[in-house]
Amino acid sequence: MTTELTAVQLIDKHRPTLDGALEAIRTRAYWSPHPEHPKAYGGTDESGRSSLSAGEGQAAFDALRGTRFELDQPGTDGWVGDEVSPYGIELGVLYPRPDIEVLLPAMRAAMPAWRDAGPQTRAAVCVEILARISARTHEFAHAVMHTSGQAFMMALQAGGPHAQDRGLEAVAYAYQEQMRTPQSASWSKPQGKRDPLQLAKEFTAVPRGISLLIGCNTFPTWNGYPGLFASLATGNPVLVKPHPRAVLPLALTVQVAREVLSEAGFDPNLVALAAERTDEGLAKTLAVRPEVRLIDYTGSTAFGDWLEANARQALVFTEKAGVNTVVIDSTDNYQGMLSNLAFSLSLYSGQMCTTPQNLLIPRAGIATDAGAKSYDQVVSDLAAAIDGLLGDDTRASALLGAIVNPQVKDRVEKASDLGQVALASRTVANPDFPGATVRTPTIVKADGARKFWDGPDADTAYLSECFGPVSFAVAVDSTPDAIELLRHTIRQQGAMTVGAYTTSTDVERLTEEACLEECAQLSLNLTGGVYVNQTAAFSDFHGSGGNPAANAALCDGAFVANRFRTVEVRRQA
Amino acid sequence: MTTELTAVQLIDKHRPTLDGALEAIRTRAYWSPHPEHPKAYGGTDESGRSSLSAGEGQAAFDALRGTRFELDQPGTDGWVGDEVSPYGIELGVLYPRPDIEVLLPAMRAAMPAWRDAGPQTRAAVCVEILARISARTHEFAHAVMHTSGQAFMMALQAGGPHAQDRGLEAVAYAYQEQMRTPQSASWSKPQGKRDPLQLAKEFTAVPRGISLLIGCNTFPTWNGYPGLFASLATGNPVLVKPHPRAVLPLALTVQVAREVLSEAGFDPNLVALAAERTDEGLAKTLAVRPEVRLIDYTGSTAFGDWLEANARQALVFTEKAGVNTVVIDSTDNYQGMLSNLAFSLSLYSGQMCTTPQNLLIPRAGIATDAGAKSYDQVVSDLAAAIDGLLGDDTRASALLGAIVNPQVKDRVEKASDLGQVALASRTVANPDFPGATVRTPTIVKADGARKFWDGPDADTAYLSECFGPVSFAVAVDSTPDAIELLRHTIRQQGAMTVGAYTTSTDVERLTEEACLEECAQLSLNLTGGVYVNQTAAFSDFHGSGGNPAANAALCDGAFVANRFRTVEVRRQA
Repeated sequence: MTTELTAVQLIDKHRPTLDGALEAIRTRAYWSPHPEHPKAYGGTDESGRSSLSAGEGQAAFDALRGTRFELDQPGTDGWVGDEVSPYGIELGVLYPRPDIEVLLPAMRAAMPAWRDAGPQTRAAVCVEILARISARTHEFAHAVMHTSGQAFMMALQAGGPHAQDRGLEAVAYAYQEQMRTPQSASWSKPQGKRDPLQLAKEFTAVPRGISLLIGCNTFPTWNGYPGLFASLATGNPVLVKPHPRAVLPLALTVQVAREVLSEAGFDPNLVALAAERTDEGLAKTLAVRPEVRLIDYTGSTAFGDWLEANARQALVFTEKAGVNTVVIDSTDNYQGMLSNLAFSLSLYSGQMCTTPQNLLIPRAGIATDAGAKSYDQVVSDLAAAIDGLLGDDTRASALLGAIVNPQVKDRVEKASDLGQVALASRTVANPDFPGATVRTPTIVKADGARKFWDGPDADTAYLSECFGPVSFAVAVDSTPDAIELLRHTIRQQGAMTVGAYTTSTDVERLTEEACLEECAQLSLNLTGGVYVNQTAAFSDFHGSGGNPAANAALCDGAFVANRFRTVEVRRQA
Repeated sequence: MTTELTAVQLIDKHRPTLDGALEAIRTRAYWSPHPEHPKAYGGTDESGRSSLSAGEGQAAFDALRGTRFELDQPGTDGWVGDEVSPYGIELGVLYPRPDIEVLLPAMRAAMPAWRDAGPQTRAAVCVEILARISARTHEFAHAVMHTSGQAFMMALQAGGPHAQDRGLEAVAYAYQEQMRTPQSASWSKPQGKRDPLQLAKEFTAVPRGISLLIGCNTFPTWNGYPGLFASLATGNPVLVKPHPRAVLPLALTVQVAREVLSEAGFDPNLVALAAERTDEGLAKTLAVRPEVRLIDYTGSTAFGDWLEANARQALVFTEKAGVNTVVIDSTDNYQGMLSNLAFSLSLYSGQMCTTPQNLLIPRAGIATDAGAKSYDQVVSDLAAAIDGLLGDDTRASALLGAIVNPQVKDRVEKASDLGQVALASRTVANPDFPGATVRTPTIVKADGARKFWDGPDADTAYLSECFGPVSFAVAVDSTPDAIELLRHTIRQQGAMTVGAYTTSTDVERLTEEACLEECAQLSLNLTGGVYVNQTAAFSDFHGSGGNPAANAALCDGAFVANRFRTVEVRRQA
């Protein structure tokens, strides 16, 4: 496109969207400007916005394969890329590898004009970037699918509208935070009978410096957009370092951002890509550069801890590993509980940071609307529910997606080493992609007696994150013990989510108190179409930022407030 | 007092004050509920609020001397204290030294009820604490004077109403931040022809853990209240570890806080004192305790850096050393400039973190409304202005206060080692306190040629903080060079304040750009009754949080947003 965009046009165009987002984060009611249904895309809608149809998105993705992904960044030092889809196809896309001695200064040089543009213009440009991304949702869906291994529908929704929602949410928080201080103020202090003291004051939100986004393999856009847009909206250039196995979704994002920035009259180097050679470890190099003052990271605890310890010149926002627990005390909807849990454990083969891992079930069984159920019965009924859900290979593939990398595949294949298998994983054939690695979830039985998790001899598999389609049916001595184990697990390992099923108000209260004290997000008695592993932008917080799984939540004031500083210039009036 | 306070009463009583503060931080206009004039205190005002008069405050302070300061804290392990006033008198007050193995658990046990009270009640309790402190302003004035060495009027104003303003400002930010998310929400997501998905959500602001306040010698209340009240208002217990030479003002604060908390039905252990034996190094012990999750610190760069590197379990807010610069390019009010600078350099003997240190003056002189002035002339005129301001010992004492500690005294006495002395420091006799150590400021000439501050041979005294009444008249080759040196100094050493005098719009623009890019607060052309080293709560930011002098600003969203987290509990509706 060649249209020049003025700031005023952009602000006018996107004011309703921004206002909608601001209202939604205030009320926490349901809201989204990004349609979830695949058929909502294609053609031109009533407001004149055109988007790629399913076929156009597929074609756009196909056209990218085997090409050089041109970004016209300063300081390109060769071309890199070896993405292979979890569905078995090679993408063959080559990306520019940056010469950071050239790229970083170019990014810094772009800062003053972007700072001077102010919060409103920055927000409008960010919303325009998201709108252009939204229009290419079908293209992004394939890019996310073939890097993360998500099934197509999930890749479209989580990688498209849901990720865009999370990006917009960050823009709204960033805008609101910067607008809390006025641009100027008159200050007049009475001095009794003398003239008042008078000052004219100006306040400017200033960026911290280059913001580094270190992308992840499983949710490159969903986990990447909050940090990217929070930093950009607060005036910082963003250098995007994607996971080497999931470059394309973020490369497309960078491309759109650069296009919009240019058209709006800003330096496109405010957003740049840092692709790397295999095993280059570029994130480590970039993270300690003095120009890098903000880092957003999603990934392993080991590297997150390394960043927090070593990238001391930067503010570091991390989402690391955690162990998610579901306390199963009792239920008045046994079938609903089983169906809900079966879906949660199966979705994207359990490869979500929010997937439950440990199901804590009293050894003596639980009370349900279908009568008392023993521990063994609950476990076998859950196994049956999963079997039923995934009985048909086509349907199973649409829910499971594909295994994202060989480590996860190894883990599920070796799960029987961890204990007695209550539900074995099986291989599923994907009818469209014979090369896809697809596995159903496995459930391992475990003993939750206190000695196994508390004290000198504690050494049990379920206390560590076992990322992928492996969960543990942990037999606990009582529900109070389950709540103690829940607390212990959150404190030691962190948790992105906690679930609980109970008909007892006492147990509900104890579980809530545990989550309030240990700082974890709790879903109670989900038996319908909402799952513990799903959160909705503008309403639900993703992570708490208060336990070891993540030092930030998506999204709140703390996620944006320190990405900029306020400089005051005051003059005698 | 024995009155029981209900939350509703407190909220009603303090709603106007809180609303006033919220409005002030939004508009940044002048506002304060705390009178500055000493005569505003005493008796009972029209709203029924009684306060200590000057005489009563003096008597209350006198009565404290030579006593045990009882706080009724759990876990007292002996009594400590050896404060000696910079005015030469021994305070002789003994404080409880904590057994932290008893005190810390007691503080943690107080958290759930304080969390459950909610942001509004917490804010009201905090405002009540501030109101009680305000009523004892005259007593606090003596306590601050005889620990910091501030002159009485400054101790009363900066240690009283201005500190209370900064505390209230933090309460307002904390309240507002917690209220951005509603307590509950109904969420209903349309599902086309099917029933909508519906959830009932509850959101609770939860504390991080014990907050440690490490107080400073020079401004125990002013620098201490923001962190104390920000943490308390967001639900965290606060352990106050005062500077061993400035315990009394914070011990009084803890006493008032515990009294109000008890009367309002909360556990007084939400605020506790940690006094220590001389050279015990208790801050280091406390800072790495796992229960301590927040730290507020004002003091040396060395210990601030140690905290940031070692107290990794906590969020650390630091104000450290910096080097403050004034660029002197030109002026249309030469006398006003000289008077303003003379006052700034003299106030509290230059012992403010905001006092200018380096005055950058072009070697070729400057243009003024009184004609061209050579570098030497500017320096000698400034020296004369200081001499004039401090010519009378009584008046000088009222402005200078006393030298806070022997290190500052040594520094000013050895200033001639640093270069040619343009204004020598002299000893002033304090008529009321013969034991007071009082010194006037000294000005040392220095060469600001680039080779002395930039490059391999750079090694000049003015590039380091020289805390106390020592400033440098730095001869620079040009105003652009001055701005380069300003940038260099902020980047390397940090700065709490920057001043500039110029009649040139170009120089003004360049100086502003330097401050925006290096992130420092700028005061332009101050020639009247506002000084570069003074900031007003609710309007001015103290520090920027974006250069090495401090990682936080007083006060903004970033100062409070991460002191609590939000836990969500969602249920199927």
